[in-house]
Amino acid sequence: MSQGPGKAKRGIPSKSENFNEWYPFMVEAAELVDKRYPIKGMDVWRPYGWKTMKLIDALTHAEMERTHHEEVNFPLLIPENLLEKENALVARLKKAREEGVDPDDLRDEEEEGGFKKEVYWVKHAGDNELDIPMFLRPTSETAMYTMFPLWIRSHKDLPLKVYQMVNTFRYETKQTRSFIRVREIHFFEAHTAHADEDSASQQIEQDLEIVDNLMHQLCLPVIKAKRPVWDTFPGAWYTIGIDAVMPNGRTLQVASCHHYRDQWAKAFDISYENLEAEQQHCHQTTYGMSERLLGAVVGMHGDENGLIMPPAVAPFQVVICPMIRKNSDVDTVAVAEEMATKLRRHGLRVKVDARDIRAGQKYYDWEIKGVPLRLDVGPRDIAQGTAFAARRTGGKEPVSMDDLPNACMTILDEISDELRLRSSAHMNDVLQPLPAFTEIDGNWTMEGEVEDGKIYQIPFDGTDAHAEAIERATGMTFLGDSTESYESNMPCHMSGNMTRRRVLLAKTY
Amino acid sequence: MSQGPGKAKRGIPSKSENFNEWYPFMVEAAELVDKRYPIKGMDVWRPYGWKTMKLIDALTHAEMERTHHEEVNFPLLIPENLLEKENALVARLKKAREEGVDPDDLRDEEEEGGFKKEVYWVKHAGDNELDIPMFLRPTSETAMYTMFPLWIRSHKDLPLKVYQMVNTFRYETKQTRSFIRVREIHFFEAHTAHADEDSASQQIEQDLEIVDNLMHQLCLPVIKAKRPVWDTFPGAWYTIGIDAVMPNGRTLQVASCHHYRDQWAKAFDISYENLEAEQQHCHQTTYGMSERLLGAVVGMHGDENGLIMPPAVAPFQVVICPMIRKNSDVDTVAVAEEMATKLRRHGLRVKVDARDIRAGQKYYDWEIKGVPLRLDVGPRDIAQGTAFAARRTGGKEPVSMDDLPNACMTILDEISDELRLRSSAHMNDVLQPLPAFTEIDGNWTMEGEVEDGKIYQIPFDGTDAHAEAIERATGMTFLGDSTESYESNMPCHMSGNMTRRRVLLAKTY
Repeated sequence: MSQGPGKAKRGIPSKSENFNEWYPFMVEAAELVDKRYPIKGMDVWRPYGWKTMKLIDALTHAEMERTHHEEVNFPLLIPENLLEKENALVARLKKAREEGVDPDDLRDEEEEGGFKKEVYWVKHAGDNELDIPMFLRPTSETAMYTMFPLWIRSHKDLPLKVYQMVNTFRYETKQTRSFIRVREIHFFEAHTAHADEDSASQQIEQDLEIVDNLMHQLCLPVIKAKRPVWDTFPGAWYTIGIDAVMPNGRTLQVASCHHYRDQWAKAFDISYENLEAEQQHCHQTTYGMSERLLGAVVGMHGDENGLIMPPAVAPFQVVICPMIRKNSDVDTVAVAEEMATKLRRHGLRVKVDARDIRAGQKYYDWEIKGVPLRLDVGPRDIAQGTAFAARRTGGKEPVSMDDLPNACMTILDEISDELRLRSSAHMNDVLQPLPAFTEIDGNWTMEGEVEDGKIYQIPFDGTDAHAEAIERATGMTFLGDSTESYESNMPCHMSGNMTRRRVLLAKTY
Repeated sequence: MSQGPGKAKRGIPSKSENFNEWYPFMVEAAELVDKRYPIKGMDVWRPYGWKTMKLIDALTHAEMERTHHEEVNFPLLIPENLLEKENALVARLKKAREEGVDPDDLRDEEEEGGFKKEVYWVKHAGDNELDIPMFLRPTSETAMYTMFPLWIRSHKDLPLKVYQMVNTFRYETKQTRSFIRVREIHFFEAHTAHADEDSASQQIEQDLEIVDNLMHQLCLPVIKAKRPVWDTFPGAWYTIGIDAVMPNGRTLQVASCHHYRDQWAKAFDISYENLEAEQQHCHQTTYGMSERLLGAVVGMHGDENGLIMPPAVAPFQVVICPMIRKNSDVDTVAVAEEMATKLRRHGLRVKVDARDIRAGQKYYDWEIKGVPLRLDVGPRDIAQGTAFAARRTGGKEPVSMDDLPNACMTILDEISDELRLRSSAHMNDVLQPLPAFTEIDGNWTMEGEVEDGKIYQIPFDGTDAHAEAIERATGMTFLGDSTESYESNMPCHMSGNMTRRRVLLAKTY
């Protein structure tokens, strides 16, 4: 394997003209993954991709530690009978919703539902058929909530806040895409149990704050929307989806939070002794993210020449390219190594590219990989006490060797800001008002067309029938109610009722 | 879940008298794992256990970085047909060994062998039966060596050195034990490809040096032995097993290195263009470790009162217990927090236990969890400018607050040394010379008995028949030739031939 940069030759598909070719080309050209593994939708993570993912994970670990979540690690395999508990719960909630009754008034029903059709099954081991089939976790609610009753006894054990980073599996039948839709998923899941609904609601607030912190580091603006009922996670009271917007205007759900109230706790008998010495069911939440975060980083920040890594997660934040001149008195490589040592001492991640190849080839390689800052050093630079800084976001300038670490850190901060500016500009650009709808005899017609690559927002306080009419006319999906509602009342796009609800519509991945 | 120490009550089984009860009790009492998950041999890692494992992993990551291995992450699932390639290779090598011919002179044969009987199978997904069955990796040779030919072209791509830390699976039919024999294994595997046999041999040397560095940190002496032919990893030229010695004298293989020569490369067509522009097969090595490292730490260092964590991997190296006295003027908790802040600034992992419970209960809890150093602070200590340091390995002394971080670091180093002394003393104690054997009419008789809980070493240069006679008479297993052979020639225990080979015999886990 080439230890250094990619082997890709010129001929990168144009990102602006053909994002759908650029993306799959780039994840391999930048050596993030190798898609040639003989199972579709299961890529091999190569060192550069895995390092980036682990840097994203490190940000998450830090947020988990700050918010006092503890890391656990659950078995991958889940016995079938636990899934049946979940299915019964989901079926009951669905029925209650359809019949408009309190779910507590219904009993669990046997029904094929939930994840059952999307999981990989283990029914054999060695030469044996197993007594109880097991499946590869698509997510760990059922595994964890089987253990929670053993860990929670009294209010002193609450809140219980655990998380894990593990591989999960979905039997995807749709087209797979690296990081975006894969069959083995590098997954993060936090699960919490609380004494009451309020405390669980506060957890959701904290989750959204964590999302904000992470997205700031990844330089990605996101949409946070309370999903419509029909798109709520099975067993949840409500779901908040967090969507990044890709260059083609499609949204990519990169995270989600679920407030379960006490529905799961009732199904799995998770209760505690409250201060009045009574058994009371817990309220629970889940917060999930995945390698899609990397998919969003790749998709949003890259340009015609390759990736652009946000400095917070760039495996190499700085690459130093010493000019290799034979017959020169000046040992540029030694100077480059000294510079690297100095920068590393300040916590920067630095690579020295001392390969004896054309400078143009080096630049090309590191551009594809998206290293945010390149420092060129030749004999003349050294004589002048400077290095030549080239930002991956554009712009070149000499920097003084005297204050190199601070200069680099300042430039990296400016690069982060530039990435934030660009992605926010893109978000503003794609967010559009929806053409008006008119009703004749109960049929709704849209007065105009929706544009490809755009996301639409409307004040909305209509019925499910209104929503359906919009989805049918636009071919788009309701992302739900933005957590940032309108500042003052607006007339609903369909019913005209005054509302502050800001609903978003998009084509989704 | 209790966020702090264990809930276990008094009544710890005696380690010295009944290690086989002490061990399973302790892994749960110290909250390393929870064994109540509904699949046998698949434990839930609790926060304290997972943190310890990750600290062990961090030492490994650092060694990998030092030795220029790159981290990758391969899919868990492997298509059945790749296993068949491995089986054919293994069958060919086995036949060659049995017939005493060069394996290259034989063709691959179809045979059920290798891991086939030990793997979990995925043959169904959703409602479908899969066209090609897949299995959960027991280890990743076949997965990786399918990709290596795509990554290796010329000598410039060599050596290729990659590793991963992943979950692997074995369908164990023997009795399971936390960390020691489990069905989902937290696994480390390094795989390398080299231009020639020499370079691969040097890699094995480096692996053994890494083992030494890790074991020094874990305060564990180990036996490194070249396994006998019949215990060599399938497809390997030779295997070096690294064994820790548990308190009951059983050895626990915690790591192994395999030199494959070019056998696997031939089976998977891994070749490169050498300097003469010819295609040449690579030579390969593997180096594996697992959560058994933690099993050895738990087993070796613990005592009658609980675990003793080696400072290098202790989740908390120091626990500070402020005396909680109502009606006291002195805020001992505030002082404890200040001390903790100061210690953390020096990179120490510190817990403040400010629970308002009896001091004895706190001591008991942290003893079970094996925190190496406890600092008690009461109003009188504070007045005197000292804290009272209690070592988990025994011994108490006042330490001055003025130089607390250095004092703690010195004590922690001394605790590490003490653990090394103890485990080395145990190793010396269990290593015994084997009673003599006499031969009458081709039948060998041992002149005495082997003792339970001991390991035996002998100069050995005998035949397989000799080895078999020894194994039968002793009920023990040949660990193989120690990498530390005798300094001068000794007469073989059976044949009398002079040899420096030092062979070890033990009961193994």
